[in-house]
Amino acid sequence: MSNDMLAIINARIVTVDEQGTIINSGTIVVDENGLISQIAAGSIGHTSETVIDARGAIVMPGLVNAHAHLGMTLFRGLGDDMNLEDFLSRLMPAEIRMLDHEAVVAGTELGALESLLGGITTTLDMYYLPDAAQEVAQRSGMRIFSAPNLLEGDGPEPLPFDARMEWAEQWLIQANATGNDSLNWLAPHSTYLLGEEHLLRIAALAGKYNAHIHVHAAESFGEMQLVSNRHNGRTPIQVLADTDLLTDAVLAHGVHLTDEDIELIAEHGASVTHCPASNQKLASGTARVIDLHAAGVNVALGTDGPASGNDLDLWLAMRLAGYAQKNTAKDPTVMPALDILRMATINGARALHADHLIGSLEVGKAADIIVLDADSPSLTPIFDPHVAIVAAAGRGDVMSVIVNGQVVVHEKRVLTINHAETVQKVHALGGVVMAAVEEVERSRRK
Amino acid sequence: MSNDMLAIINARIVTVDEQGTIINSGTIVVDENGLISQIAAGSIGHTSETVIDARGAIVMPGLVNAHAHLGMTLFRGLGDDMNLEDFLSRLMPAEIRMLDHEAVVAGTELGALESLLGGITTTLDMYYLPDAAQEVAQRSGMRIFSAPNLLEGDGPEPLPFDARMEWAEQWLIQANATGNDSLNWLAPHSTYLLGEEHLLRIAALAGKYNAHIHVHAAESFGEMQLVSNRHNGRTPIQVLADTDLLTDAVLAHGVHLTDEDIELIAEHGASVTHCPASNQKLASGTARVIDLHAAGVNVALGTDGPASGNDLDLWLAMRLAGYAQKNTAKDPTVMPALDILRMATINGARALHADHLIGSLEVGKAADIIVLDADSPSLTPIFDPHVAIVAAAGRGDVMSVIVNGQVVVHEKRVLTINHAETVQKVHALGGVVMAAVEEVERSRRK
Repeated sequence: MSNDMLAIINARIVTVDEQGTIINSGTIVVDENGLISQIAAGSIGHTSETVIDARGAIVMPGLVNAHAHLGMTLFRGLGDDMNLEDFLSRLMPAEIRMLDHEAVVAGTELGALESLLGGITTTLDMYYLPDAAQEVAQRSGMRIFSAPNLLEGDGPEPLPFDARMEWAEQWLIQANATGNDSLNWLAPHSTYLLGEEHLLRIAALAGKYNAHIHVHAAESFGEMQLVSNRHNGRTPIQVLADTDLLTDAVLAHGVHLTDEDIELIAEHGASVTHCPASNQKLASGTARVIDLHAAGVNVALGTDGPASGNDLDLWLAMRLAGYAQKNTAKDPTVMPALDILRMATINGARALHADHLIGSLEVGKAADIIVLDADSPSLTPIFDPHVAIVAAAGRGDVMSVIVNGQVVVHEKRVLTINHAETVQKVHALGGVVMAAVEEVERSRRK
Repeated sequence: MSNDMLAIINARIVTVDEQGTIINSGTIVVDENGLISQIAAGSIGHTSETVIDARGAIVMPGLVNAHAHLGMTLFRGLGDDMNLEDFLSRLMPAEIRMLDHEAVVAGTELGALESLLGGITTTLDMYYLPDAAQEVAQRSGMRIFSAPNLLEGDGPEPLPFDARMEWAEQWLIQANATGNDSLNWLAPHSTYLLGEEHLLRIAALAGKYNAHIHVHAAESFGEMQLVSNRHNGRTPIQVLADTDLLTDAVLAHGVHLTDEDIELIAEHGASVTHCPASNQKLASGTARVIDLHAAGVNVALGTDGPASGNDLDLWLAMRLAGYAQKNTAKDPTVMPALDILRMATINGARALHADHLIGSLEVGKAADIIVLDADSPSLTPIFDPHVAIVAAAGRGDVMSVIVNGQVVVHEKRVLTINHAETVQKVHALGGVVMAAVEEVERSRRK
């Protein structure tokens, strides 16, 4: 008999597999490699010393946040009651002014703490100084997919575009050498902050290393105008298609899409990460999720950064995604619960090219698992577990979180991050953040 | 020196008073009657043995849920992916079949548990067998405003309309005798489930006892048609005005309002309880909150029942209220944070005719106070406490809850309700609920 690593018993298992299988009372066994070796109803023999008794609670795949800026926790609450363009022109210069490796580690660690406590086991991150995110990933146990952030101008990395491209190439060489597919990514910011020439060079680099693309696209009314002006009347999606960046890409937001855009996305096998909290708060519009689904586009779910969101709460994103589509369509039957749950799990995994490994509970996949609270008032009673998850569960209901078979949250406490210290560090950085933001505002008023 | 009951120290006090005063680090002292006797920056002398150290966290008024059906937790998740009319024709007969006093107590107690843990200290409830809600109110310490539920036909109370009116009169006589204004209410269900004659009789009874009115109005597209058919082309608001039920009433939902309706509401001093989760999930539409504000109407916030909602989460309601208005108006600057916070606190108190007592933290008011978690990741950092509350806080962040000076939640545990037993009781009732729902479906198919 193998050396099992973990067993979860008395579980109401919501697998999110192809058939949407639910096992009302069952067991999950995880082998020594952190992979799920058995899932079945009732009890199963195992050799694990670590046993989690779910006590009848819902056990489900870890949530996949397919678009975030974790380090932006530092700026939480500073982009409120303003539009995307004002938000960016306030925050981007402040970020460039004050961010260094240590600050991004602090912000990202807080983001990882919040994510893990909220049942998010994987995040596709886009932020400056991505080494910082990897440092946090290793320490916290959370899967963070990250990439060099590619902008026309300088970032907190004091690199002009040419140097940035060299740095990006080094990053991909290392990712390929270590075989770490979660690093095999490039993050061109957007088609409004990059010109055609930049985009073509990024596409060439991505092609050379078979890297995946993570890019903002078609988020706001203002962006559509900017992109049209900069790129001869084209939409962001057309520009990405024309510059060879659309294939299999992750398009963050995808709010303002023409029918032709949707066709292009489907043809190129790109995924859209829907970020309803951010879109609604910035009044960016309502993404055409139902039309995207109908066209066969893979739609994942994201929180966006905690300065627009303002939190890293995928339960909220599930609620907002379903509610907005139902209300906009004037039809409460659209976007049923399982569709929304898929967006927060397996569709995210698919967007990240990691659905062979994560996104559903199936034998052979990694044990990225969350156990909800058997005593949660809002999860009482449970008639349909899919409905309970998308319409009543919240981050406070996450009891245990397992990544790759390792327990990282136990009884609502993170085991891998010092909670109080992490919070304290970011509170302490508040003064520096505020000073940078105020300096930006002063120089804008001049 | 008086015998103080409670002191809260090191508090970031969000008063929600007329000026929106925030005290960055201060103390609140509560006297022996449960009233706030002092609020000030820094330390204050007091004689209380009970001291809560907020450790710099946000301390704010308890949330006011101005429209709920607490006992409906029993049916949580059974009204999903269907419209209001289907939802009602599925659930109302099932409720009538299976509800008795004990069942409503169980459901309401679960609702109170969920509410208190989520920082809701007061709820305007509308449900059958309202004695059950009062029993729970007394036991749990939560303020529950309730009333006889007035329908044309039988409810779980096997009373035809005439008998129901007698019962309602007895209820008001008792409320007046005990001076308990939270019971001095009548709850005519709606203008679609009651005829003009019923409504006039209810208005006469309310007038006789000076009772307040809590009524569903203008919730869904379907309702507008039903009311128009039943009441000679009038809107629900016109019918309520014509039958003398609009003055100072609480109008649950108020989604479909004409300009004339809004004018009538403003003229009659009625409040609207906005229930965004329920409205969006049932695809009922988006309430004209900004227009209501502009007309000077008091807009409160509600969760609605947990079968439509599906939870009793006013933090979610705050998020949804702001986001939907911003996105619909295509303007992220509308509905700033403090306006939304007022909807969940002082506006609710005003709707309940209880703003002299609750809804803000001010000297002389009752100590209905919640203390958030100083270590909450999503409340880190805090630049603007109003923004933090409406855009990042969640029910998991509620550390302590105080009602009338009594601590009812301490370190995220309810002291007045047996948590595990309450959850267990409702789980155990699940079979009875499901049997009743299935019986209804069978008889509808025949």
